[in-house]
Amino acid sequence: MMPIGVLRTCFPEKLGIPRQSGLVPQARGILRFAGHQPPEVWRQALEGLDGFRHVWITFLFDRAVEQGWKSRVRPPRLDGKEKIGVFATRSPHRPNFLGLSLCRLVRVDLDGPSVEFSGVDLLDGTPVLDIRPYHPENDVPDGEVSRGWLERAAEPSLPVEWGPGALDGLEARLGTGKTLGMPDYDVAQARALVEQVVGLDPRPAHLRGRDGDWYVRLLSFDVRVKVESGLARIGEIRE
Amino acid sequence: MMPIGVLRTCFPEKLGIPRQSGLVPQARGILRFAGHQPPEVWRQALEGLDGFRHVWITFLFDRAVEQGWKSRVRPPRLDGKEKIGVFATRSPHRPNFLGLSLCRLVRVDLDGPSVEFSGVDLLDGTPVLDIRPYHPENDVPDGEVSRGWLERAAEPSLPVEWGPGALDGLEARLGTGKTLGMPDYDVAQARALVEQVVGLDPRPAHLRGRDGDWYVRLLSFDVRVKVESGLARIGEIRE
Repeated sequence: MMPIGVLRTCFPEKLGIPRQSGLVPQARGILRFAGHQPPEVWRQALEGLDGFRHVWITFLFDRAVEQGWKSRVRPPRLDGKEKIGVFATRSPHRPNFLGLSLCRLVRVDLDGPSVEFSGVDLLDGTPVLDIRPYHPENDVPDGEVSRGWLERAAEPSLPVEWGPGALDGLEARLGTGKTLGMPDYDVAQARALVEQVVGLDPRPAHLRGRDGDWYVRLLSFDVRVKVESGLARIGEIRE
Repeated sequence: MMPIGVLRTCFPEKLGIPRQSGLVPQARGILRFAGHQPPEVWRQALEGLDGFRHVWITFLFDRAVEQGWKSRVRPPRLDGKEKIGVFATRSPHRPNFLGLSLCRLVRVDLDGPSVEFSGVDLLDGTPVLDIRPYHPENDVPDGEVSRGWLERAAEPSLPVEWGPGALDGLEARLGTGKTLGMPDYDVAQARALVEQVVGLDPRPAHLRGRDGDWYVRLLSFDVRVKVESGLARIGEIRE
């Protein structure tokens, strides 16, 4: 297996990554192709992809490889209290460490070449093994669908507000150009990204929903968050 | 990458395999797990999967590896006349030779252990790298979907009838128990399988739709087909 490239995303650390693709529409990623083929080959391989709006990304959970795979895992959405067989989950700790995400295709840039996606749920720097279009005929199940243990899964959420000066801090950080290689965000996009990520309460299961101070790293900055009485207030934004 | 097992299917040869999963509901497959883990480990990994009805199978297009991958391919659904970038297709001739199929979960057998699927589009003996449940929340695209070049794709189909004695031949072949390891079919299921496969006109693009004699191998028998004036008549069924 040779990665076709690397996905640069707005998530430099594990905390903050949504549990699934599509949950944070402003989470963007750029696939930059590997050097083991000349750019012309990748350009040819991309011909016709821009006619689609949604793409499956097959990737490697490379940061999980070191810890190995587990036959049973504790899904965060069951608050880490219950063990489930790994094949009944999307856990990274699976045999072969293969990930699969349905993302929205934003742009195919044949010059790069590169491909930009939104709704990503991948760590910055994730090796990508394949991309293929979403087929509305074949990727929709026949007949009734069952949700298995997802019926019991929590969907954490927090109302979010901005503390004094926090938006100015965000604007200042974006001006520094430190997101090199990662997707470019304007202020409105970065603001939506922060709100969407914080609003999903990405903390570990045992802390989720509770009052407390925490931070999440997005793009090239830390976002400080204070949760009080179930309301998340965004505080300082710093590098 | 170590396969988690091998999928035994009703398709011992390439001709006859539907172009995508779900097209032939009677196409069944059984995943038999690899010996590199004790059965108990696979049993644990399967816990909770039976609550779902649809599963993504990630597999290796192992028979395509030898020919290598191509940056542009001629999709059979465009009658082989047009070249498209491989990333805009589901062609087997792709970097890393990874396949992805959405199949219906028929049964999780913890004794084997094994997992039975229907709607498969995989060659018998295909190495499987991973299975994971279909998530109705995350595997459905946000917003409008685009079908790209699929808008121009052909959906070949043939009306099918049984010639004299053909059904008796089918029944006789099923009695021989030669499908060992592959899914077991009763006569009604095998009949539906043959009709569904032949009805998709699985011949190569340059022959498709034309009159002619051809055969397709399913389970442990050959099915002779004669197409005349757009009608497919099933003839002899033999080993």
